Amino acid sequence: MERSPRTVAQAGEDAVLSAILEVITPHNDAVAQQHRQEPGQERAQQSGQTLAVGPGNDDAAVLAFSAQPSPGSSQPTAEVVMTTDTMSEGQDFRRRWWLGPNSTAEAAERTEVWAMDVGTKAAAQNLSDISAMGAVPSALLVSLTLPADLPVEWVGDFFQGMVRACRAPGAQRCVIAGGDLGSGDTISVTITALGQAEDAPVLRRSGAQPGDILAVAGPLGRAAAGFELLEHLSAPEHDGAADATEQKRLWESHEDLIRDCLAAQQRPEPPLTAGPTAAAHGATAAMDISDGLIRDAGRLASAAGVCLKLDDAALEAEAVQLEPVAGVLGRDPQAARRWVCAGGEEYALLATFGAGVVLPEGFRPLGEVLEHRDGVPRVITEHAVSAGGWSSL
Amino acid sequence: MERSPRTVAQAGEDAVLSAILEVITPHNDAVAQQHRQEPGQERAQQSGQTLAVGPGNDDAAVLAFSAQPSPGSSQPTAEVVMTTDTMSEGQDFRRRWWLGPNSTAEAAERTEVWAMDVGTKAAAQNLSDISAMGAVPSALLVSLTLPADLPVEWVGDFFQGMVRACRAPGAQRCVIAGGDLGSGDTISVTITALGQAEDAPVLRRSGAQPGDILAVAGPLGRAAAGFELLEHLSAPEHDGAADATEQKRLWESHEDLIRDCLAAQQRPEPPLTAGPTAAAHGATAAMDISDGLIRDAGRLASAAGVCLKLDDAALEAEAVQLEPVAGVLGRDPQAARRWVCAGGEEYALLATFGAGVVLPEGFRPLGEVLEHRDGVPRVITEHAVSAGGWSSL
Repeated sequence: MERSPRTVAQAGEDAVLSAILEVITPHNDAVAQQHRQEPGQERAQQSGQTLAVGPGNDDAAVLAFSAQPSPGSSQPTAEVVMTTDTMSEGQDFRRRWWLGPNSTAEAAERTEVWAMDVGTKAAAQNLSDISAMGAVPSALLVSLTLPADLPVEWVGDFFQGMVRACRAPGAQRCVIAGGDLGSGDTISVTITALGQAEDAPVLRRSGAQPGDILAVAGPLGRAAAGFELLEHLSAPEHDGAADATEQKRLWESHEDLIRDCLAAQQRPEPPLTAGPTAAAHGATAAMDISDGLIRDAGRLASAAGVCLKLDDAALEAEAVQLEPVAGVLGRDPQAARRWVCAGGEEYALLATFGAGVVLPEGFRPLGEVLEHRDGVPRVITEHAVSAGGWSSL
Repeated sequence: MERSPRTVAQAGEDAVLSAILEVITPHNDAVAQQHRQEPGQERAQQSGQTLAVGPGNDDAAVLAFSAQPSPGSSQPTAEVVMTTDTMSEGQDFRRRWWLGPNSTAEAAERTEVWAMDVGTKAAAQNLSDISAMGAVPSALLVSLTLPADLPVEWVGDFFQGMVRACRAPGAQRCVIAGGDLGSGDTISVTITALGQAEDAPVLRRSGAQPGDILAVAGPLGRAAAGFELLEHLSAPEHDGAADATEQKRLWESHEDLIRDCLAAQQRPEPPLTAGPTAAAHGATAAMDISDGLIRDAGRLASAAGVCLKLDDAALEAEAVQLEPVAGVLGRDPQAARRWVCAGGEEYALLATFGAGVVLPEGFRPLGEVLEHRDGVPRVITEHAVSAGGWSSL
């Protein structure tokens, strides 16, 4: 068979994911099949695992591990939710965001803030995936690749940042179970998070039903606004002084908002209690917003085979809040709409609830779930925005 | 407090690990404490986890997850063994090993072999850590960072390689549960492996007792010999032709050995059944050899507070087997001794067994466990070899 010379970039994310699923789905099916057919049923019941939620459609996988059986009772299992994600310097963060245009850290505390923020963000984005399954985080594993010239304190501060993420409401039972160290040219952090659902089954994207309410917990667009602010402030040509007079005035009168946007990008605090709360209130589906609202809502629509109609007035209300940041950057107010609709790394939680459900605290309505049209699940909105980025398997 | 300006490289691995443990140990202790004190004991019993083996001393962590309780029985738990490790292009493998000195892959099958081998090795090194705890692998998660110009087939072939590693004896129930894709300048692969011990408790390094036999399963030094062979063959000045006549003769008469050494480095097959077998035969401790025999044996000695006396005749017998490879490379026969004593990425399994135990199939004796001398655990051998590299937390 002739092999196509297409590159990963030319093929695009969906083709790469398809290529992966083509390989691992038959393997996982074969393992499940073999497990069922194993001779000595007694033995097979005593150990082993079942892949309850596999790769392809959700924020995390779910594996049901067999537990020590009690005499006379059926085989108990522990359902463990698991996810992994990498954050790399250059791709996901730049040290100049903390150390200034020339990345010189004269003040040790700037390096400390940088290291803690990277640790917090790497942990938070994985904790968010656990929450999006309606589960509570149990443990983190971390694999760190570090350049040889990094200050040794950076590493301790990075782990302080991970601890900070674990102290957030919703993650307070999460331990840091172990990890690995390696060396490389740039900083790269891969975190694996494990968790368990408590009183309700795990939430999956596929559960959304026509007639459901679409709701969101956590802000929209702030991390994207923060990204542009950080790029602006740390650009080599930026001298640290304020820009034009009007921008300076905007900056001064919106300092809290700007600080929120910077923090959303540098050390996000996903609404980690939102997932388990949604599950306890009978949510039908959930996912976190990693790659932009419209793009991620499209994935939820696809997984559930439905259309999601976004409430344009609600989106407009979100966007208006961010217009001053667009102004500070000297950008058109449309930038605020793009942040809300297409901003990645937001870690807000999208969830769907049956019609008539009173939304739990922390959630606000964002639209409704409709039947798909002509067999094509999609997102219906007046905000036509394209989004980019990579997704999880 | 003044912050030291030392870099990660200057501080060295042990100092970096200490800095990490100083941060995460108090956090993990606080979580355990809070969990015990939680009001509503009933609730606390229904979910949550206990860190049975934490970071610092073993090949993997162990977390006891609570399972669905059966009425009238005590709270069942599922003990899950977990580890994570990163492999980066440049640091851990070089594409010229497969594609030749100029890394040009005219033939698609050379790229296919490269991708499969990287997938196999990344999976195998994590599966080996699970086996070293006496456990059986259940699932892998993978986070892949890929350059944009990589052929899309590379990704499918990489996963084929992971599947190959999962088909090895001892890993055949292991599924690929999910993962994440990102982009970056070089290929980086982080795999997390989960597993469960079956009929015996997990094996820990600390269990070795004076009087025990030290044994090993799997070859020693071949991956290190393979590394030097690959570097030699893929060096820019190497034209692919055979070297001097004597080296050529050695090469031809030791082709199988050379092929084994190359394979040990490019697509290792750790003895994955050895860990569970050792556990079932009452082994007192185990670990895999990731960073070299002497260095890793030193870690086992430290964890257990004992001395390990290596049998120099046994080491000599291992080294003699590799002398032809040293000859092929035009190297002193001492190179073979260094490969055996200090070669990393070997994934052989070290284990200790009570005196008088008949070693299970696949294990050969390598020394004995003695009382530590003057409170200093260490490795006693005539082969004084220094070793480098990073270790897991």
